[in-house]
Amino acid sequence: MSSKAADVIASALRERIETGEFTGGRLPAERTLSEHYATTRITLREALGLLEAQGIIYREVRRGWFVAPPRLIYNPSHHSHFHAMALEQGRVATTQVIEAREVSAQLTVARHLHLCEGDTVYRIRRLRRVDGRAVLYVEHYLNPAYFPGLLSEDLTRSLTELYTQRYDIRYGGARFTILPGPLPSRAAPALNVASGTPGLLITRINRDQHDRVIDCDCEYWRYDALCVDVEV
Amino acid sequence: MSSKAADVIASALRERIETGEFTGGRLPAERTLSEHYATTRITLREALGLLEAQGIIYREVRRGWFVAPPRLIYNPSHHSHFHAMALEQGRVATTQVIEAREVSAQLTVARHLHLCEGDTVYRIRRLRRVDGRAVLYVEHYLNPAYFPGLLSEDLTRSLTELYTQRYDIRYGGARFTILPGPLPSRAAPALNVASGTPGLLITRINRDQHDRVIDCDCEYWRYDALCVDVEV
Repeated sequence: MSSKAADVIASALRERIETGEFTGGRLPAERTLSEHYATTRITLREALGLLEAQGIIYREVRRGWFVAPPRLIYNPSHHSHFHAMALEQGRVATTQVIEAREVSAQLTVARHLHLCEGDTVYRIRRLRRVDGRAVLYVEHYLNPAYFPGLLSEDLTRSLTELYTQRYDIRYGGARFTILPGPLPSRAAPALNVASGTPGLLITRINRDQHDRVIDCDCEYWRYDALCVDVEV
Repeated sequence: MSSKAADVIASALRERIETGEFTGGRLPAERTLSEHYATTRITLREALGLLEAQGIIYREVRRGWFVAPPRLIYNPSHHSHFHAMALEQGRVATTQVIEAREVSAQLTVARHLHLCEGDTVYRIRRLRRVDGRAVLYVEHYLNPAYFPGLLSEDLTRSLTELYTQRYDIRYGGARFTILPGPLPSRAAPALNVASGTPGLLITRINRDQHDRVIDCDCEYWRYDALCVDVEV
């Protein structure tokens, strides 16, 4: 629920953002804004919260408020990997490896990969940034039978390229499940948001050119960072 | 952020829900639960809030807590309309017309429909329920040139059927845009949630068998009511 005053300020700020007034993307300090709108800090924060909820601005700890960059367009039927997708949209992607190791498959992952619960799988946790902003926390689960020695490779690279170059494996069909919901505690901090902040969980189960299930990805996206686009 | 105690209670409750303990779908009263877990009402509510955030339970005003029913599977490449989709999944769908009238197209809608801002369009606002629970608030915008007299029809019916039977128009290709985000104030109350609650906005721009854009839908879904499924 928001007050009328906060609504009015949010609309006015939104208009200024849309006309491109805040070049550099940074909003003036809260004090400056509350003076400009002759309002209390509480009402101003309410207005900022409304714009944040709409994905129009976002906050960085100790740095203030910023205009949210355009959302990445995510088209499940295009087979481009993360870096290529960003590049096609004029953005710069970077990938950070958080962890890469063997683990025992939990039931859900085992089912996705057509393995048994407890079987060994490779788990790679990565954080992906667009133009420097963390937008995607992803856990890849790989069937190790297809990728011997993969964990000692440079995993900041695109897996798509690594699969092709070292293993002669190319992505074929995929199944996407898109679930809106709160970001869990293992994903939220990496994305600089509080646990429970809305996000989008995209699960992809990937097949190769021989129609074998080779891996699955659990992607946790900031809700304001992407727009899924499907044409049928 | 949640306390350790709330996490533990949430896990225990989740397990009981998954084993199907609460037949009928209704959870015991909060007082009963807090006695059972020997905890305060505050901690119990924190635990319930965690499960609510995960889409496992939901609250109804003055009625208490309920186990969330299974999510509808929404497959953009299947051309079944809402009622048929629910029926295929063993669910019962109902539709309520909130409003149906001519309006001046705003810029976004006009662009979707290949019309000019301010042109007349038909706007139909409907609320759709699955097994009695409101899950989808939808605004349909129709190009009136293709549908003379449509507003005087029974609009609780499937538009898909109405188009075919009265206008010999069938759905062809469609473009889907899926955007996670907070539910706006015109959708949230109809879905029995507070404004700003996370939801999923799905915009569909629909073409007919002659590849003409005939209408577009702005769908606002409860985030815990659906799972989007795409196979490529």
